[in-house]
Amino acid sequence: MTLIATRQSVLDRVRTHRAMTPFLALDTGRVIESYHRLLDAVPGGEIYYAVKANSHKAVLSVLAAQGSGFDVASLTELEKALALGVSPERIIGSNPIKNEKFLRRAHEAGIYAVVADSTDEVEKIARFAPGMRVYIRLAVDNSGAVFPLDKKFGVSHEQAIEELLLARNLGLQPIGLAFHVGSQCVTVRNWIMALRSCGAIWHEAAQYGIHLTFLDMGGGYPIPTDETVATFGEIGEAISDAIAEFIPETPGLRVIMEPGRAMVGDNGVLVLTVEGRAQRGEKTWLYLDSGVFNGMGEILEGSTYPIFADTDAPATHTYTLAGPSCDSFDTIARDVDLPEMQIGDRLYFTNAGAYTIEYGSNFNGFAIPEVEILE
Amino acid sequence: MTLIATRQSVLDRVRTHRAMTPFLALDTGRVIESYHRLLDAVPGGEIYYAVKANSHKAVLSVLAAQGSGFDVASLTELEKALALGVSPERIIGSNPIKNEKFLRRAHEAGIYAVVADSTDEVEKIARFAPGMRVYIRLAVDNSGAVFPLDKKFGVSHEQAIEELLLARNLGLQPIGLAFHVGSQCVTVRNWIMALRSCGAIWHEAAQYGIHLTFLDMGGGYPIPTDETVATFGEIGEAISDAIAEFIPETPGLRVIMEPGRAMVGDNGVLVLTVEGRAQRGEKTWLYLDSGVFNGMGEILEGSTYPIFADTDAPATHTYTLAGPSCDSFDTIARDVDLPEMQIGDRLYFTNAGAYTIEYGSNFNGFAIPEVEILE
Repeated sequence: MTLIATRQSVLDRVRTHRAMTPFLALDTGRVIESYHRLLDAVPGGEIYYAVKANSHKAVLSVLAAQGSGFDVASLTELEKALALGVSPERIIGSNPIKNEKFLRRAHEAGIYAVVADSTDEVEKIARFAPGMRVYIRLAVDNSGAVFPLDKKFGVSHEQAIEELLLARNLGLQPIGLAFHVGSQCVTVRNWIMALRSCGAIWHEAAQYGIHLTFLDMGGGYPIPTDETVATFGEIGEAISDAIAEFIPETPGLRVIMEPGRAMVGDNGVLVLTVEGRAQRGEKTWLYLDSGVFNGMGEILEGSTYPIFADTDAPATHTYTLAGPSCDSFDTIARDVDLPEMQIGDRLYFTNAGAYTIEYGSNFNGFAIPEVEILE
Repeated sequence: MTLIATRQSVLDRVRTHRAMTPFLALDTGRVIESYHRLLDAVPGGEIYYAVKANSHKAVLSVLAAQGSGFDVASLTELEKALALGVSPERIIGSNPIKNEKFLRRAHEAGIYAVVADSTDEVEKIARFAPGMRVYIRLAVDNSGAVFPLDKKFGVSHEQAIEELLLARNLGLQPIGLAFHVGSQCVTVRNWIMALRSCGAIWHEAAQYGIHLTFLDMGGGYPIPTDETVATFGEIGEAISDAIAEFIPETPGLRVIMEPGRAMVGDNGVLVLTVEGRAQRGEKTWLYLDSGVFNGMGEILEGSTYPIFADTDAPATHTYTLAGPSCDSFDTIARDVDLPEMQIGDRLYFTNAGAYTIEYGSNFNGFAIPEVEILE
């Protein structure tokens, strides 16, 4: 397993961090670096961090200090962003379904805009957040993404036009379009195709007198899990070219990105301890103090984490790794090559900064890992 | 969808319970009934409720009042049981992997016994809980279970004998055997086969002077999701016959059951509200105020919940149901036939008493449903 994503220096620092396991070590300095790397890759772009990836206060604080905006999906996330002192203008609501409480609070607080992708939603926004800016989410191809999000959200070209017109008729301010290429999208093709779709709607809307300026490209910017994954630079270049081609000459155009995983994924390491060991037929099992239920829930969606021991000593054993619960779905990884492990040894799960503590439950009475900030 | 499992009367009472959704309505009166139905089905048997299925205080309290014992898997679960005033003698630790803290506390509190299924674990118990009673968990066939648990836990016949001998040599009290046929096990065959395996080890252990008396048959007792599922009565009869055949003439034999789902599964109903609605191609989606991440995580393991609307009016529409988060894994069910649903209408997910709030996380800032007790 190579260290493409989580750099050696992070791992080295985590290995000497002596907190009680299980914990999630976060390198907030590198979160800042990731923020600027993505921002620099898309000239003129703006970042609205997707709070759902990791809503820990330390992450939100460092991003707010860099000037990041925030994409919030629920009342809890909205209140977290507001509590940090983030300007409401720097908050958007990109969850296509929002309840009355959220909309009333968003309207009262004066957040910049919210998304819609159904007639019911446009009507709900008009009712509970009258006059608000809205943007319409399109359904786009997610086939290049590790975690596709299509089908659940997004409208067709025709429906996008209908919703924009409905929004205007109901007194809302239709300002733009949004899409999501899928989480951990490894190819630039998805962005190009999505921007082509946006361009067509953009021009048709103008014919109806609706001049869009807000282009929300969602998340999906990948962490570099291997050499084939598109880099921020490649994605940025493709995006810039596609915008120039499909959405030229838009005065006041705002290009929004909503990265989640890309800001925190490879800047977090889950540190666990071996609590049990058993030989089961040909397999040697190690039982750890946290698992699928307490933080590594993305495993059930097909995710994997590069795993390291306390040293870089050569691997001499092959293990099956499991979490602490009585549930057999709580099996973390199979056939993992490692140095020989004893009860009490620690293991390091890299690329674990996003969708870990957020997915975590206390099933079977085992705690969600605490966050430790690497200074 | 028929109401085999959750009886009409429960649903009727939940429909008139006006708490704010999302909530999990629990019928604790029926928990008591389930307890006695299983107990009556296995003459001479004892129940140690598997706390992991639903650790809500109301559930633990009514079971404790009936005289139930408790199977705890973690320090948190142990402290919950002790805090209720349950006698430590009525607590066992059937998680095959236990950490130092749990073992020290279990020993100090004087719980009745703990399980082991590896050499490392027997040594750990001897070190942190010297002199304790131990029972050894066997690997048994889980092929008749909806949620198989094999592979992660359990030893072979030969290793069981080794661990019993090791336990004795290390000053522990080897008292018995345990197995688990798999969660929601729908056929009696698994219990019969497992008891046959137990019998063989039981007799061999006696030849070494280890006279076992503690037979822990674990959980897996199914809730009646359809007519093909074995009833408590059928399972109890098969168990009694198998014990008489394979483990005859054991003075002081204790027959332990560790039901979790069977005590609470069909006595709980998740009540959610429709917050959004969208037409996506041919499909109509309803978005609810709780979903896969907040309580219905077993869906990712293949579970389903019989779903009902506010009335028993004929189904006229087909819906896709999704939870409130931005994540497309948060899709609850597809092609559900229901009366026409509007935003604000409630839906009832039956058979939801077990592994729902326990699996729940706050992902995306959405809360785990609160528990409401149906008096």
